Amino acid sequence: MPCIQTKVNVKISEEKEEVIKSKLGKAIELIPGKSESWLMVSFEDECKLYFKGSKDDKIAFVEVKIFGKASDKAYDDLTAAITDILHEELDISPLNIYVKYEEVDHWGWNGSNF
Amino acid sequence: MPCIQTKVNVKISEEKEEVIKSKLGKAIELIPGKSESWLMVSFEDECKLYFKGSKDDKIAFVEVKIFGKASDKAYDDLTAAITDILHEELDISPLNIYVKYEEVDHWGWNGSNF
Amino acid sequence: MPCIQTKVNVKISEEKEEVIKSKLGKAIELIPGKSESWLMVSFEDECKLYFKGSKDDKIAFVEVKIFGKASDKAYDDLTAAITDILHEELDISPLNIYVKYEEVDHWGWNGSNF
Repeated sequence: MPCIQTKVNVKISEEKEEVIKSKLGKAIELIPGKSESWLMVSFEDECKLYFKGSKDDKIAFVEVKIFGKASDKAYDDLTAAITDILHEELDISPLNIYVKYEEVDHWGWNGSNF
Repeated sequence: MPCIQTKVNVKISEEKEEVIKSKLGKAIELIPGKSESWLMVSFEDECKLYFKGSKDDKIAFVEVKIFGKASDKAYDDLTAAITDILHEELDISPLNIYVKYEEVDHWGWNGSNF
Repeated sequence: MPCIQTKVNVKISEEKEEVIKSKLGKAIELIPGKSESWLMVSFEDECKLYFKGSKDDKIAFVEVKIFGKASDKAYDDLTAAITDILHEELDISPLNIYVKYEEVDHWGWNGSNF
């Protein structure tokens, strides 16, 4: 029951989206117990984003939402992996990438909560 | 002070949107003390969503944000209701619907916080 | 490591967007230790928003996400400031503006977490 929501101010082609989606599906395994088989992923491209008051650079804001909790180490590893993916695939500088985590207590699927 | 944000990868017609909005306005009463008279609702349709690595099926990701807390039972009931609504109105399988909850400590309206 | 995400159901011109962005960059200083030099801002205009069951009025939903915590007083001040900005610049009634806060424990930048 994880979800990764990616907002960027650049265009993501369909091909790139598939590649990034697959890489995120692998990266989520850095959180113990999580895998692509429960992962929901969303992309919003060409967003109106500003960082440090400017929109001139490529920017990404990523929100990772997971049911339950994980260790600091797991979050660190996932931040490194997500940052690498967006840097490699979309040429966004790690200096302009935020990865934010939310630990969720109540999460429903198939009509009832876990 | 609740908010229900719905993201789907299908198109929502204006008529359907009105129907779903009204049903959500009724469903929110499953959380004690909440009603449509304080509910904000957002819809994002034709989103780029993937679940289990695929975008081929109809998918919904719903985020319910409420000021304060509620019981597990109330959240269970609301998950069932929201899932039913999206299944009935948009033909999305409950197997492809996530409903995530956030309990909020600080919430502002009309220029000051509750 | 703050982020302010603004969703409105009206159109925001490029000029207005710049003005609001700058004003939010100043307002964030109401949270001790925060400034525009770490602030990410996003805008989504012409959103499908309903408040109290209606979409006829101008509506705003603002999500403020900060790394760490702040005082009630700081959040109150920021709610007042953000509400003023959206009222002045977009003519949205304070009665139709929600400002929601999320205190974040895990936040990554430049490939690792703070």
